[in-house]
Amino acid sequence: MTASLLLRNVRPMGEAIADMLIEDGRIRAVGAALRAPAGTPVEDGGGRLALPGLVDAHTHLDKSLLGMAWYRNEVGPTLIDRIENERRAKAELGIEPERQALRQAIASVACGTSHIRSHVDVDTLYGLAGVEGVMRAREALRGIVDIELVAFPQSGLLLRAGTEALMARALDMGVEVIGGIDPCGMDRDPKGHLDVLFGLAERHGRPLDIHLHETGELGAFSMDLILERTRVLGMQGRVAISHAFCLGSTEPALAERLIAGLADLRIHILTSGLPSRPTPPVARLRQAGIAVGGGNDGFRDTWGPYGNADMLERAMMIGLRNNFRRDDEVEMALDVCTHGGARVLGLEDYGLRPGCRADFCLSEGRTLAEAVVLHAPRALVVKGGRVVARAGRALTEAP
Amino acid sequence: MTASLLLRNVRPMGEAIADMLIEDGRIRAVGAALRAPAGTPVEDGGGRLALPGLVDAHTHLDKSLLGMAWYRNEVGPTLIDRIENERRAKAELGIEPERQALRQAIASVACGTSHIRSHVDVDTLYGLAGVEGVMRAREALRGIVDIELVAFPQSGLLLRAGTEALMARALDMGVEVIGGIDPCGMDRDPKGHLDVLFGLAERHGRPLDIHLHETGELGAFSMDLILERTRVLGMQGRVAISHAFCLGSTEPALAERLIAGLADLRIHILTSGLPSRPTPPVARLRQAGIAVGGGNDGFRDTWGPYGNADMLERAMMIGLRNNFRRDDEVEMALDVCTHGGARVLGLEDYGLRPGCRADFCLSEGRTLAEAVVLHAPRALVVKGGRVVARAGRALTEAP
Repeated sequence: MTASLLLRNVRPMGEAIADMLIEDGRIRAVGAALRAPAGTPVEDGGGRLALPGLVDAHTHLDKSLLGMAWYRNEVGPTLIDRIENERRAKAELGIEPERQALRQAIASVACGTSHIRSHVDVDTLYGLAGVEGVMRAREALRGIVDIELVAFPQSGLLLRAGTEALMARALDMGVEVIGGIDPCGMDRDPKGHLDVLFGLAERHGRPLDIHLHETGELGAFSMDLILERTRVLGMQGRVAISHAFCLGSTEPALAERLIAGLADLRIHILTSGLPSRPTPPVARLRQAGIAVGGGNDGFRDTWGPYGNADMLERAMMIGLRNNFRRDDEVEMALDVCTHGGARVLGLEDYGLRPGCRADFCLSEGRTLAEAVVLHAPRALVVKGGRVVARAGRALTEAP
Repeated sequence: MTASLLLRNVRPMGEAIADMLIEDGRIRAVGAALRAPAGTPVEDGGGRLALPGLVDAHTHLDKSLLGMAWYRNEVGPTLIDRIENERRAKAELGIEPERQALRQAIASVACGTSHIRSHVDVDTLYGLAGVEGVMRAREALRGIVDIELVAFPQSGLLLRAGTEALMARALDMGVEVIGGIDPCGMDRDPKGHLDVLFGLAERHGRPLDIHLHETGELGAFSMDLILERTRVLGMQGRVAISHAFCLGSTEPALAERLIAGLADLRIHILTSGLPSRPTPPVARLRQAGIAVGGGNDGFRDTWGPYGNADMLERAMMIGLRNNFRRDDEVEMALDVCTHGGARVLGLEDYGLRPGCRADFCLSEGRTLAEAVVLHAPRALVVKGGRVVARAGRALTEAP
């Protein structure tokens, strides 16, 4: 099925007013007073900014509480407290992965997100229920938003016998990416944890995206082990590290050594700009040539009450956390949440140039920086040339 | 002029549904099925949360760019770069203090803010133009929002001869509070800077509110000098320190010694939860008995593009920065932006109890924490018993 559209009167990336002609789901032309074949639907962009589809390159679709009863959070302060609490809450509260994934992904569509990378819990208690649920949601939303899955051993990999086999089954089912978490802090066996992950990667030929919350020298040690395995196994360009707090909390000389290694091995970094934790230095990483993507991470879940699906608001958080004040810096935060994420996900034909896939949204704002700061409801969201949201509301109804 | 109102069907502080009866600008009663004298206006709160008037206890009304052309920020990275840039920009862009104060304060009213403490630049280049402008705005908004002024030597006190005399004149004109900034970093003469401030305080009998951005040991040194003078001059309970980044960036033992001193001398702390800087530990300070208020600080100005007038969104930022996840913690962040600020400003009869001044707003949210997380437009804002905003819009028009 082909999707064509003539979009009049927009400012692509804040440039001069132009029309955009979409044919067969791709941007055919950008320019003044374009003409379209008879019968092509026409939209007036009202002079708004056109931005490429936002990329939520790190989130957890299987476990938000969107649309559920208010969850009174009384959870203890450690990572393990939060993991154990969530493990119990999934059954007690009835956090149904398919339903919650649909709710969150449709909220993302309303905010102009065209691509999502979702970590999905793989765990001996719930098995592959999360993966199955998110896969059903992904099928239901095909053509509306692209969803990539990461098999994520949230509750530990070695700690709970049987998790590795579940991870392998998830990959056989079509999960694209192998996830991991805190090689020291979680399994308390960094060599063992990483050997399993890289072993799965080798056998299944899949890329890695590893949660690394560990700070300071501990995180630097784990990162070093990841660098070493990436090099030895020839996985350059196929490894991502999410959060990477240690890059913002070690001695500058050590951080610089890690950054040089990440750049050399083309390892990607994903950040949500979390205000309460050390942050990987986005500008420095990009300067070193490292692809940096952004993500909303989990939100409105048993971990904490904050957040929403909006990657323009996330760009603001990344800007605030990195002390980005100049317009070129705020534009960099936006780039992290668009082209940066696209690079991490390996998206082809991404952007607003002719030939690119017609994934974009229209936003308020006189400049790109103002679009980030306002993050006003998106006037129009287009996916593959078809309108999927208007005036901040997705055209698909959430369950 | 008296203001009466019967507000039906609200949940004061998230408690059970109740009515609130307002007479003569004060809350007379809170309870079920209240009756009011004939002719009393009646509003239906729709079951929403009632919160006491939000308190923006640290902002800069004289210099936002609200309603002006987009300002392309290309400013250098240091504090001095930003100060010098702003000094030039005020004339070049025509940042008119009265107009900008009206715009910002009216935006605050729309968000449910009942009280504002505004630092106002006092400077040899612009003299008291800022103070005069904000004072005119305050007069224009009397009965709609209460505004307290701080004479703020943004560009230095000793650096620019004549600033002390201007500060004294500002106090004679009715400015309530004496401001200061970075005793080491700004004037590079901590003893000289603080002696002038405390000298003004002694002669004019006014409280102090000092910006302290200095981090680590340097900030701890400046804070120690403030503690010493507060003790010696008997200014207990009359000194506030804004930002206080050093409390989040020194060794724990040193921070604890400072916290003990702050508590002993009843020095208040004001925070905006800025994600890019170290933060005073809100929960620890409150545990020590220290009054902690919140503020939006300057926003949409030549310093940076972010922010808005909403103190519920600010409560979220303070919560995020302090890693507050549990409901009781998020409620603490809200308390910082309501009762905490009220305590710093010395407000009497503040709150939702019978006898308090009828300053409050109605907010969406099933719980207090959800009100913070959503920070949806305020359905109704009441000041001194009169409706001043509805559905997120102030009833007073901004220039």
